[in-house]
Amino acid sequence: MRMAELSRRTGVPVPTIKYYLREGLLLPGERTSPNQAIYDETHIRRLRMIRALTEVGGLSIAKVRDVLDAVDSPEIPFEVLGAVQHSIEPPSGGTGSEYWETARERVAKLLLDRGWRANVDSPPAKTLIAALASLYELGREDLAGLLERYAPVAEKIAEVDVAAVTRDRGIEDTIEGVVIGTVLGDAMLGALRRLAHQHATARALGVPESYDYEKGLRGEHE
Amino acid sequence: MRMAELSRRTGVPVPTIKYYLREGLLLPGERTSPNQAIYDETHIRRLRMIRALTEVGGLSIAKVRDVLDAVDSPEIPFEVLGAVQHSIEPPSGGTGSEYWETARERVAKLLLDRGWRANVDSPPAKTLIAALASLYELGREDLAGLLERYAPVAEKIAEVDVAAVTRDRGIEDTIEGVVIGTVLGDAMLGALRRLAHQHATARALGVPESYDYEKGLRGEHE
Repeated sequence: MRMAELSRRTGVPVPTIKYYLREGLLLPGERTSPNQAIYDETHIRRLRMIRALTEVGGLSIAKVRDVLDAVDSPEIPFEVLGAVQHSIEPPSGGTGSEYWETARERVAKLLLDRGWRANVDSPPAKTLIAALASLYELGREDLAGLLERYAPVAEKIAEVDVAAVTRDRGIEDTIEGVVIGTVLGDAMLGALRRLAHQHATARALGVPESYDYEKGLRGEHE
Repeated sequence: MRMAELSRRTGVPVPTIKYYLREGLLLPGERTSPNQAIYDETHIRRLRMIRALTEVGGLSIAKVRDVLDAVDSPEIPFEVLGAVQHSIEPPSGGTGSEYWETARERVAKLLLDRGWRANVDSPPAKTLIAALASLYELGREDLAGLLERYAPVAEKIAEVDVAAVTRDRGIEDTIEGVVIGTVLGDAMLGALRRLAHQHATARALGVPESYDYEKGLRGEHE
């Protein structure tokens, strides 16, 4: 198909497709003349994946490139998983905090206590350390305890995730599943957490069943 | 204290502080002459909060402003919670998907099945719908089942969260706790999930206990 149809079928505007081609996120189509190329189903699939990662997952174009490079690499899935995790890690600023060492020890102890084979200097561990250090800085040690309370829940989530992506699928589908599952899974978990917050808060504060949240937000509560 | 000391104590560069003042994220200090102002502990606290939200939580300056506006508003906590959730919701693109209606019905059914008092047209519900619609588009119905499997886990997380922020604290601390807990909680959960993935994958694939992840990522595995 021509680029116009590729755009129509994926909902991605032509200038955006050209941008992805220039940035190397999308492989070039098969050239039929100096100014024309044709595209196939693999391009549609790739564009849908880019949309999912950017629009739903909130990844930057640079992160999407890293993720797709990992997906396209000939590495074995286990290494790809690691590379994907490295590339989609959120920024973990705050290394300069005076609480960094204290926070790092607490994360190291958690990994040991739970018997997790994971490195305390890996990007996700650094994100945890940065979050903890921030809580200490803000004087919110009370919230730091979320770390230990979240850990067993995260273990359960990871079991669900691993079961979902390794089930009856070929190796390419598994790798793609890891990428999509990790990024869209973050979005889904964050959203479910907020919906569950609405419910849990309503219950904790004794808000009546009939309360209209949207009205309340518009300031129309009685 | 002068701005130089404020910068030193928080690790935030002077030009960045000036930017936050211009953008209204930070309240002006008390003016002592046309060109000088003094700042106090509330400014330090606010700057630390901005750093936590941007550097660890990954929020944009615009989102931080929305969140801080909610924190500073005289609304009751329940409304603030809603406003904060609205403002820190990740982008939920993809409304144009042909699978939107199917996905919306599935999310509505989930809310009903779990008895959650939450609106299917609220921002977090839309994020869920967008994620589901993406999975359908990508032909990954197999991963869509994560929705129902994540929901009870999210319920548990929300209980932990609500207990953590409503414990023995005044109203201002509670509101601040909701903001920090929601944003840093997302970062912590995402990071713990990745660490648990490393462990769960290693176990599922029978990777020996001695495997060195960091070496593997550098391509130094045997």
